[in-house]
Amino acid sequence: MASLEAGGKSLQAEFLENNAQYAAEFNDGQLPLPPARHALVLACMDARLHVEKVLGIKNGACHCVRNAGGRASDDALRSIVISQRLLGTKEVHIIHHTDCGMLTFTNEQLAVKIKEELGVDVGDRDFLPFPDLHQSVLDDIRTVRESPLVAPGTRVQGYIYEVETGKLRVVE
Amino acid sequence: MASLEAGGKSLQAEFLENNAQYAAEFNDGQLPLPPARHALVLACMDARLHVEKVLGIKNGACHCVRNAGGRASDDALRSIVISQRLLGTKEVHIIHHTDCGMLTFTNEQLAVKIKEELGVDVGDRDFLPFPDLHQSVLDDIRTVRESPLVAPGTRVQGYIYEVETGKLRVVE
Repeated sequence: MASLEAGGKSLQAEFLENNAQYAAEFNDGQLPLPPARHALVLACMDARLHVEKVLGIKNGACHCVRNAGGRASDDALRSIVISQRLLGTKEVHIIHHTDCGMLTFTNEQLAVKIKEELGVDVGDRDFLPFPDLHQSVLDDIRTVRESPLVAPGTRVQGYIYEVETGKLRVVE
Repeated sequence: MASLEAGGKSLQAEFLENNAQYAAEFNDGQLPLPPARHALVLACMDARLHVEKVLGIKNGACHCVRNAGGRASDDALRSIVISQRLLGTKEVHIIHHTDCGMLTFTNEQLAVKIKEELGVDVGDRDFLPFPDLHQSVLDDIRTVRESPLVAPGTRVQGYIYEVETGKLRVVE
């Protein structure tokens, strides 16, 4: 299997090597399940956005939900309701970012691509792309605030992360 | 607002302070949008699972999707199809973990709690809890492999992360 990979080593093998080093220095085995800072971060899956590092989040401090775009999808709301009802979080921080892939396509274009490449008809499925970065953060803040599954009074704040500079800009 | 917080400082203020330090040392502004290692990691939102650190993932290397349980939900499949079709990833690595909140409730129990605490009737909505950790990883590997939205031949591998030891165990 390894010979299939560039450089001869599978990513799994690399993860396991890296993790052995992590585990050798690990000292957080007593952390409790509920997040210490009672907060959840919802961010894009982008490879350049290492959420805990960018925000300086300590181990055990915050839930971290990520998906394409960092959108307040139905599934993100599933995660938020579990986080709030079972594990006591009270804040949601939403992070989108510059140079996001979600700015580069429409549902119609992706549907055509999926049909051509995978032979699957996705109909009018919404893949949650957005044409305006600032507005998408505002939209997702509103979706979370207005969801009946989210506790009234939950603090919901939004940001744009600049992949070019490493800086976080507050939207709200 | 700050006076509402333990210690007098809001989490947003802390994030911004931490980020200013991160940005001051930032040197990755030229990283491209597509993940360098052509892989996506799907993991639980748990606060004790800092995915990039646990796996030794470099900035820009892998997409990272996270939700309650690290489940192969419909929304996770949305993220995977975007990752594969638009940004060229070819592997999926799924990580669940010990002491997971998803092992502690049933859909029925959570529905009752939501009704009592928020006054919302969620009907028979599936919040994707699981009673068996090993099996949940196998189930999600299968869901990804069998999805028509996932490219045939995609390498899908699964792991259990031990929050007590920092170690990653291979499931498949």
